[in-house]
Amino acid sequence: MKVTVHRKAHFNAAHRLYRKDWSFEKNDAVFGKCNNPNFHGHNYELIASVTGDIDPETGYVIDVKILKDIIKSEIEDAFDHKNLNVEVPEFKDLNPTAENIAVIIYNKIKVKLDSKFHLKITLYETPRNFVTYSGE
Amino acid sequence: MKVTVHRKAHFNAAHRLYRKDWSFEKNDAVFGKCNNPNFHGHNYELIASVTGDIDPETGYVIDVKILKDIIKSEIEDAFDHKNLNVEVPEFKDLNPTAENIAVIIYNKIKVKLDSKFHLKITLYETPRNFVTYSGE
Amino acid sequence: MKVTVHRKAHFNAAHRLYRKDWSFEKNDAVFGKCNNPNFHGHNYELIASVTGDIDPETGYVIDVKILKDIIKSEIEDAFDHKNLNVEVPEFKDLNPTAENIAVIIYNKIKVKLDSKFHLKITLYETPRNFVTYSGE
Amino acid sequence: MKVTVHRKAHFNAAHRLYRKDWSFEKNDAVFGKCNNPNFHGHNYELIASVTGDIDPETGYVIDVKILKDIIKSEIEDAFDHKNLNVEVPEFKDLNPTAENIAVIIYNKIKVKLDSKFHLKITLYETPRNFVTYSGE
Amino acid sequence: MKVTVHRKAHFNAAHRLYRKDWSFEKNDAVFGKCNNPNFHGHNYELIASVTGDIDPETGYVIDVKILKDIIKSEIEDAFDHKNLNVEVPEFKDLNPTAENIAVIIYNKIKVKLDSKFHLKITLYETPRNFVTYSGE
Amino acid sequence: MKVTVHRKAHFNAAHRLYRKDWSFEKNDAVFGKCNNPNFHGHNYELIASVTGDIDPETGYVIDVKILKDIIKSEIEDAFDHKNLNVEVPEFKDLNPTAENIAVIIYNKIKVKLDSKFHLKITLYETPRNFVTYSGE
Repeated sequence: MKVTVHRKAHFNAAHRLYRKDWSFEKNDAVFGKCNNPNFHGHNYELIASVTGDIDPETGYVIDVKILKDIIKSEIEDAFDHKNLNVEVPEFKDLNPTAENIAVIIYNKIKVKLDSKFHLKITLYETPRNFVTYSGE
Repeated sequence: MKVTVHRKAHFNAAHRLYRKDWSFEKNDAVFGKCNNPNFHGHNYELIASVTGDIDPETGYVIDVKILKDIIKSEIEDAFDHKNLNVEVPEFKDLNPTAENIAVIIYNKIKVKLDSKFHLKITLYETPRNFVTYSGE
Repeated sequence: MKVTVHRKAHFNAAHRLYRKDWSFEKNDAVFGKCNNPNFHGHNYELIASVTGDIDPETGYVIDVKILKDIIKSEIEDAFDHKNLNVEVPEFKDLNPTAENIAVIIYNKIKVKLDSKFHLKITLYETPRNFVTYSGE
Repeated sequence: MKVTVHRKAHFNAAHRLYRKDWSFEKNDAVFGKCNNPNFHGHNYELIASVTGDIDPETGYVIDVKILKDIIKSEIEDAFDHKNLNVEVPEFKDLNPTAENIAVIIYNKIKVKLDSKFHLKITLYETPRNFVTYSGE
Repeated sequence: MKVTVHRKAHFNAAHRLYRKDWSFEKNDAVFGKCNNPNFHGHNYELIASVTGDIDPETGYVIDVKILKDIIKSEIEDAFDHKNLNVEVPEFKDLNPTAENIAVIIYNKIKVKLDSKFHLKITLYETPRNFVTYSGE
Repeated sequence: MKVTVHRKAHFNAAHRLYRKDWSFEKNDAVFGKCNNPNFHGHNYELIASVTGDIDPETGYVIDVKILKDIIKSEIEDAFDHKNLNVEVPEFKDLNPTAENIAVIIYNKIKVKLDSKFHLKITLYETPRNFVTYSGE
């Protein structure tokens, strides 16, 4: 019996959408006010969804505490109250759009999980804008 | 890398569930208080979910502003503060159930999107009743 | 010890903002798209907040079931799936703005409560627009 | 046209995570504070998602009232304000983890639905921890 | 300048509403299904609201971290994953209604705060039932 | 009849909590990770609550559109996608704590309202931390 276990977490961060190899004008045309050189920020809400078989011994797919600890060490400690462009190495040369942040989060959590699990990431940039990624 | 971008929007509208070719009694038996001839209404919450590859140049699947503008012109301008049965041509001969409204919204947004995208519509009629449709 | 007990409820209704004694043009200037003669509608969310002393016997200010039943008989049965302008007598000559609906709800619940209680009504017309009234 | 109709419901219950055939120490090591012998509890939020073709006559996949009544008789009446371990027979020998509760809910609702429908259960144990199951 | 700082927290617990000095029949008549001798439970959501002057040096009324730590040590550590009737001494002879729990929470937090602050407690027993208490 | 009309809005911004006249060490001791020199950010949710008498002509306390427009021009246009410390003049020498931001928002909206109205500001820095200010 395959069940998906979802765990919600959150972090606050600053970011700016732009490409270093583009002119300010081109960045402005493509990214608008998200290209503010002084940064803006968000309360990101994250859902990590892990799919696997129920362990008949425990009744768990995965102990949520394990999942919570992975999210804490890999994502919250690395991203919370940070400037994504300046302080998070994964975005040194990668534009921190919600799409790219979701892919990075997926990659960071996936390697910490038993490979038998399927993972899906939902990332809310605002309550009105969010993205999902599941490694496909 | 396939990512889904979700955008939330909303509109308020009046509607009545009934078929013109049925008697009031039959409509009443099937649709109950939703068949009130004087109409009732809802705050509809809409999520348009667009799936596609991340553009490696911008880091976007689709610029959310484009999606927001399509929702505004196709759905909000057409449905908000309207009587769906009386004023929205798509429901002239189609019962405006949540299911049918979701299909109409899907069709109206789909034709405005690049055909490479997959679209899914989630429509909340109330916080407790909602539907999803993805063209299948 | 004075405690306030809050109970949430909801109803869906159609309405139109206008005055019968004004021209369509004047109604349109003042009420805009809310003056749609074909009506529009909302999912109204209601919070009834009752303040009083804790009964030392039961530990209740008021049994929430009593409050729930008053809301059901006085508000939900009277307003849910109705056209406020056409079917609810209180709005025959009263514009059903959120403000006026809150006052009517207050009056209808207040008379059913023991007079020792203080009542406050919060009415959400949409998740973004809401009003409060407490009989002052 | 396949549409999914979702209905939200809720119930409050007490539970304890443990296996009768394990020592207290082993239960404590695996289930931590969830193994409290005096029980703890949750407000469970449930979403039942039913997928099927839109009936061209009514515009419904399923009358939400039917779905609501099934949830009431099968789940709310059986689980609400109950101790899952002590009073719900399905958990007599089954650990009431969110995963197992979701499977039991799925099984109880599925048999009451026309077999043409696909069912998916989402169960929130807390706003931060939830599971999904669809019979696969 | 008086500002109120609000901090949200949560705990899960089991409880039963009844008086030891009443018969089961009387408890049943007054508390209904909340009198289940096997207990039921809730996800309690708590808001502690502290009012005071803005410190012109820091721009804080109170460092939210201080408030968060008080809530953790006084409320979460004492109530979370507990049976309120059996394991929390304050409810040994006090019926754990939402009203009484809010008063106890108020008393426990108030003594840990500088006396210059005004405190108000909001306690959600469910998303639909909640209470407020501010020591008056 | 005094009614309060509430309008919700939102803006995203970056900020840093610190005083220019303090050493980094002192700022770090007082503001912790909120003192990150590279900034972090939030999705601020704002509720402006205007209290006044119902106008018997219109049934409005204030046309919500007027309130919405004031919030847009005074707050959203000034704060959204901005770095509060660097780009918003009010915070040049004022620490942008939630408390201080609420006071500034109050002052900016108050002067645009008819003086007969009472105003209260609720500002969510995160879903768990928020403040209220009403000019007292």
